[in-house]
Amino acid sequence: MAYPRLAPSSFLPFLLLSLICSLVSAQANEDATIKTMEDFSGYPLHERNDPFCGSSSLPTSLSVDGDSLQRQINELSTFSDTPAPSVTRILFSDKDVLARRYIKNLMGLSGLSVREDAVGNIFGRWDGYKPGLPAVATGSHIDAIPYSGKYDGVVGVLGAIEALNVLKRSGFRPKRSLEVILFTSEEPTRFGISCLGSRLLAGSKVLAEALKKTTVDGQNISFVDAARYAGYMKGEDDLSNVFLNSGNYSAFLELHIEQGPILEAEGIVTAIAAPASIKVDFEGNGGHAGAALMPNRNDAGLAAAELALAVEKHVLDSGSIDTVGTVGILELHPGAINSIPSKSHLEIDTRDIDEKRRNEVIEKIHQSAVAIAKKRSVSLTEFRIVNQDPPAISDKSIVKAMEDTSKELNLPHKLMISRAYHDSLFMARISPMGMLFIPCFKGYSHKPEEYAASQDIANGVKVLALTLAKLSLD
Amino acid sequence: MAYPRLAPSSFLPFLLLSLICSLVSAQANEDATIKTMEDFSGYPLHERNDPFCGSSSLPTSLSVDGDSLQRQINELSTFSDTPAPSVTRILFSDKDVLARRYIKNLMGLSGLSVREDAVGNIFGRWDGYKPGLPAVATGSHIDAIPYSGKYDGVVGVLGAIEALNVLKRSGFRPKRSLEVILFTSEEPTRFGISCLGSRLLAGSKVLAEALKKTTVDGQNISFVDAARYAGYMKGEDDLSNVFLNSGNYSAFLELHIEQGPILEAEGIVTAIAAPASIKVDFEGNGGHAGAALMPNRNDAGLAAAELALAVEKHVLDSGSIDTVGTVGILELHPGAINSIPSKSHLEIDTRDIDEKRRNEVIEKIHQSAVAIAKKRSVSLTEFRIVNQDPPAISDKSIVKAMEDTSKELNLPHKLMISRAYHDSLFMARISPMGMLFIPCFKGYSHKPEEYAASQDIANGVKVLALTLAKLSLD
Repeated sequence: MAYPRLAPSSFLPFLLLSLICSLVSAQANEDATIKTMEDFSGYPLHERNDPFCGSSSLPTSLSVDGDSLQRQINELSTFSDTPAPSVTRILFSDKDVLARRYIKNLMGLSGLSVREDAVGNIFGRWDGYKPGLPAVATGSHIDAIPYSGKYDGVVGVLGAIEALNVLKRSGFRPKRSLEVILFTSEEPTRFGISCLGSRLLAGSKVLAEALKKTTVDGQNISFVDAARYAGYMKGEDDLSNVFLNSGNYSAFLELHIEQGPILEAEGIVTAIAAPASIKVDFEGNGGHAGAALMPNRNDAGLAAAELALAVEKHVLDSGSIDTVGTVGILELHPGAINSIPSKSHLEIDTRDIDEKRRNEVIEKIHQSAVAIAKKRSVSLTEFRIVNQDPPAISDKSIVKAMEDTSKELNLPHKLMISRAYHDSLFMARISPMGMLFIPCFKGYSHKPEEYAASQDIANGVKVLALTLAKLSLD
Repeated sequence: MAYPRLAPSSFLPFLLLSLICSLVSAQANEDATIKTMEDFSGYPLHERNDPFCGSSSLPTSLSVDGDSLQRQINELSTFSDTPAPSVTRILFSDKDVLARRYIKNLMGLSGLSVREDAVGNIFGRWDGYKPGLPAVATGSHIDAIPYSGKYDGVVGVLGAIEALNVLKRSGFRPKRSLEVILFTSEEPTRFGISCLGSRLLAGSKVLAEALKKTTVDGQNISFVDAARYAGYMKGEDDLSNVFLNSGNYSAFLELHIEQGPILEAEGIVTAIAAPASIKVDFEGNGGHAGAALMPNRNDAGLAAAELALAVEKHVLDSGSIDTVGTVGILELHPGAINSIPSKSHLEIDTRDIDEKRRNEVIEKIHQSAVAIAKKRSVSLTEFRIVNQDPPAISDKSIVKAMEDTSKELNLPHKLMISRAYHDSLFMARISPMGMLFIPCFKGYSHKPEEYAASQDIANGVKVLALTLAKLSLD
């Protein structure tokens, strides 16, 4: 290797810097395989730890690989227990385990260092040049309720990985580390607990205890056994290891489809509505559908039907468009055409951006359940409020960063409320939080017709990438 | 073997008869094993075909082995897919196959000749001394809806076998053959078809076609495959082989628990109410329980809840205590707490002793379904009347025979209507029919608390036995 000639002293600092960079380059070039992979991928897989190489200024050009991202969304959707176009991916099922492996592979290919916690939250980290500073995180979930679609959550995980790729391709170097999080079980499908992973990261001791001791699914499989089946909770006794400190992240962002019909362009979320869920059981005497006369009946199924309609009534009576309530589960026992239902089970979801108004609806639902049970001489054997979470408010500086970014990128946007809850609701408890919505077709979500346009996804990834870059330099 | 001395001629016919009987006896005695079994069982296993041996007059003493009968009821109840005290025995399940084997063994031990038809109706025959005459039949079913009890149907099968044992022990010899029938699938649990076996015996061509071509269960297993799994329909192409001619039986009787709260003693059924069943499907757009605003929803679950309550209203509006209606099945799709139901499925059972009044209720239910679908902007994708059977009237001479028998045995009884349907509803199409009810605790049926007292069962068996004996001599 030849050394350059000595240059005039005014050029010396620049030359020295060039020299160091050349040396690093030369070392890298010696590994032909890595060179080929880097050439192939179009961006550096092996980051230099030297802050003087690469740019720590904001990227000027952001190129999203929309085709690859759409292909990944399509590929991930094939890990499903129901046929396309529907997606069903239940926590710790075989398909969920395969999908997690797919995401970890993508993280690895993007040069992120991957870590998993005891309940299966997955973290892919791009170290900043000040790795000791609290990191900037982004992410979402990939579990899917039965017969749902392929964008909910997924856009915020695959989009986050692509956002980091965009920054890497641009030559950007983060100061704070950037981290992509895949949250375990945002959907409550299997264990009846929504945002299980983020709720635990945010330090819920009640949940940690419940997961270890009492949480079972509909087939009476414990959370612990299900987690071990999927390769988690190996020898873990203390789930408090999963908890994150409040100072762990300087910011958390989530990219997500709107799941509502409002947006034509991006939405910047200023608050997330307060969700609650309730489980109700009625019990009557049952009996033979032919022989038991009508006046002698106490039909638990009709009690459930009445309560379902009462939920709708109380929600509408709130007078606000922001109050919603749904009976998504209504089951009858024994479930035979010629048998009067002796038991019924309902699961009720109700939300509002106004916590007090939502709590009033819950109280009215409870009163109705008691009154219906009395009127129909059935027992109200359970009325359990499973969760009753407060709303979350987005961090003002993160909202501003997203607004400024959208303006810089000439992308129209609107400030809005999220009526759906997300992992951000819980991440807001331990980190300044912001959410970015992209439009989805007719607001369809939680069904196979769910759809977001590639261009809208790409725009969302762009805003996410640039906002992450800004926050990383804060 | 020594011959008796010749006797005076006036004694000759009597002596000859004694001689023949002695010869038959002596031959039987040569088989020591059979002799031991006969001694053990207390009644002859091997009937003599000679009408002069045994008595063709009515038995004077009827001794029911109530303990054995109760033990059999308890044993049969253990062939269940749910834990005791509940019984769940679904057509052609492994447990159903075992239970059928248990019954065939009992029939064999009672010396009946056993035959099965292509769909699993089982016939155990005691040949009369005029075997060419139409037989007298009795029987019921042993399938059990999910989480039901151990007496429904079972009493009419095990009780029928015991009734024949009672007659055998008494030394009675039937003129017409007596036959015990186990009917396949009285309950509609698996294939949605009630009284499948008896309906087919009665010659339903529509059912024969449907069973071969279109009938599937909830897991999409065809009736043909399920039947073959259980050992039936082997190489059978033509289910019309199962049909019985109208002249096949001179009488059909069924012993059954009341399944209602009226009786304190026996009930003699004069008519069976007319049953109908309906399947209904609603379909809406579904969507996310948080994000979809209330005015934009078309919730298929709430449509189902409204229709369930409408069924109750129309039934009560009929003004007659005899009109009943039940929604025993109500299912929501996708069945997730945070998903608006996009589909719902109901199965409705409605009955009346007045066919016209029941049909008016069906018409009103249909009108409600149409109106609810319109109001809620959901589609009424199915409103299918699965069956709409006429009532059945008991045969007057059989009713009289049962009344006379009850009086002779000093057992109080009452004439009544059966609101529950039974295989007798269909046997009435091909045979003079009668039904005998025994009381059951609080009228409980189709649930684990179902109970009938041993003494009431024994009394029922006594009346059944003596009535069968009378009808056999007709």
